Amino acid sequence: MRRIVVDAMGTDAAPGPEVEGAIQAAREGYAEVLLAGPQDRLSRELSRRDAQRLPIEIVHASEAVTMADKATKAFRAKRDSSLRVAARLVHEGKADGMISAGNTGAVMTTAKIVLGALEGVDRPALAQVFPTSKGTAAVLLDVGANVDCKAHHLVEFAVMGEIYYRAIFGVERPRIGLLSIGQEEHKGNDLTREALVLLKQLDANFVGNVEGRDLYNGRVEVVVCDGFIGNVALKISEGLVEAVSSLLKEALSSTLSSKVGYVLARKAFQNFKKRVDYSEYGGAPLLGVKGVCIICHGGSNANAIKNAIRVAAEFATGKVNEKIERDLAGASLGNLKG
Amino acid sequence: MRRIVVDAMGTDAAPGPEVEGAIQAAREGYAEVLLAGPQDRLSRELSRRDAQRLPIEIVHASEAVTMADKATKAFRAKRDSSLRVAARLVHEGKADGMISAGNTGAVMTTAKIVLGALEGVDRPALAQVFPTSKGTAAVLLDVGANVDCKAHHLVEFAVMGEIYYRAIFGVERPRIGLLSIGQEEHKGNDLTREALVLLKQLDANFVGNVEGRDLYNGRVEVVVCDGFIGNVALKISEGLVEAVSSLLKEALSSTLSSKVGYVLARKAFQNFKKRVDYSEYGGAPLLGVKGVCIICHGGSNANAIKNAIRVAAEFATGKVNEKIERDLAGASLGNLKG
Repeated sequence: MRRIVVDAMGTDAAPGPEVEGAIQAAREGYAEVLLAGPQDRLSRELSRRDAQRLPIEIVHASEAVTMADKATKAFRAKRDSSLRVAARLVHEGKADGMISAGNTGAVMTTAKIVLGALEGVDRPALAQVFPTSKGTAAVLLDVGANVDCKAHHLVEFAVMGEIYYRAIFGVERPRIGLLSIGQEEHKGNDLTREALVLLKQLDANFVGNVEGRDLYNGRVEVVVCDGFIGNVALKISEGLVEAVSSLLKEALSSTLSSKVGYVLARKAFQNFKKRVDYSEYGGAPLLGVKGVCIICHGGSNANAIKNAIRVAAEFATGKVNEKIERDLAGASLGNLKG
Repeated sequence: MRRIVVDAMGTDAAPGPEVEGAIQAAREGYAEVLLAGPQDRLSRELSRRDAQRLPIEIVHASEAVTMADKATKAFRAKRDSSLRVAARLVHEGKADGMISAGNTGAVMTTAKIVLGALEGVDRPALAQVFPTSKGTAAVLLDVGANVDCKAHHLVEFAVMGEIYYRAIFGVERPRIGLLSIGQEEHKGNDLTREALVLLKQLDANFVGNVEGRDLYNGRVEVVVCDGFIGNVALKISEGLVEAVSSLLKEALSSTLSSKVGYVLARKAFQNFKKRVDYSEYGGAPLLGVKGVCIICHGGSNANAIKNAIRVAAEFATGKVNEKIERDLAGASLGNLKG
């Protein structure tokens, strides 16, 4: 069975969701779990729950990275943080993958430095999985703010995204799109026009330019873009979902005077929210580092942590990294970058 | 009273929504309306409705631009298109402003060539008005695909957006944000870091970097960005609203077995949709051209056209263009661009 280490001090409500998520994952048989964090506190949390016989182990870490910490400073100043301890366990081969719901910048920086980049990868990229209106999933990368990308970085993203999607969702040749402002080839900016030429040479199911709306309509499975665009896209989506939810709640509660109507509508709304719940997708993988690193939202609940542990184990089992190195070493891409 | 010319052949269902919107606007006293398009057809449409005594006049145009036409080609090949006739009437001072719901690229190109740019404006910009969860409006520019902008273009956008927002929404010093990937000054890409320095020197209520979620939470009134980002942001928002609507409808109809619950929830949903209905905001102004040009969605209904006519009249009355030229000629900005 795979061993996955969880940074137990990452979520806003840490370590509760981490401990509970670890227990659920261990109980379902997804993985053996290491919890990195303060020994005493984590022991107490575990003993309060019925977790004695589960394959869960605590690895002591005396410090925790906070949202106020700057990424590189957190790395340098907190050598015994739960985050850095988790990354070290992966680097030393004592765990097959790591999960953290902490400060995203700090997790990315720590993972990049401690784990290092895969052979052939210039820019590890954060990939966000989205639900689509077709009921399928789409993955957008980079959302981790590799800003001012060059065209060949977008090609790396496409290769990594394709392999990841295949491993996790079982689609042999996922359709790949380049995020632009129109489907026609001449539409876009300097970066996308240059990347389009390179992406067409890839041995992959590349469909050309796609538009913002194609993220959610199920037209493609993998969408690549510069990290600035991807991060803006992600945060706009989060903001819009929040705004829509709050406006809708207002409308519902002001209209539904009848109690039965309100209860029914609330149930429909909960079903709807479950459909678009990111926590079902188990976090965002940082693709391109040596090892498995899944980054979760700071507001993650136990379910999100459990799913992230599952995804990390699948990532390791699917040999995603070996395939990325092999494909990036492939002749065609060697030519592209030359 | 202001005279506004409507390209009557722009919407997907043209000329119905244009004629009906013109009648509503004229009836409400927003403006005198000129309808540019085929004389016979428009006369028939008008006579079928009770429009005899309203200040509406037809200006014949024998051609129409379609969605299949490329922007510059449409301009050159169709010299007597309803779009070009509308722009010409504004240029010749026979109308105070124009509305078109046609091919956005063709409208922008035609307006830029026929009307020309205001003194001091390098890049006219399309501004999209959004509803926020606070019930206020926010305006994002450029969404019209001025790609690969320079920092000083973003300063132009800020000046134009501020003046427009003040004129239409009556807010004396709207808060202006620069769309980036974090509020901290060091976050962003090469363009935003350079623009941040310039924007801070503006005599305006500039709040610094904002994130994607701030478009919808009412934190700022004016958001500036490169046209590639703005266009992606716009289309992601449209796509997400569509996806959310369809998922929600599914959830509602599968949950609400009780008829009364369904009827009530549907009413709530309609109220909600009205709150986020772009058509209430009357289209997107192309800021920075000599004259008033409002671009509407191809799917606009009569209400959207009516509101666009109202906004065009307010734009002209608010002397937005005179103020843009004056502010851009201001000493501080002169220094910025030097």
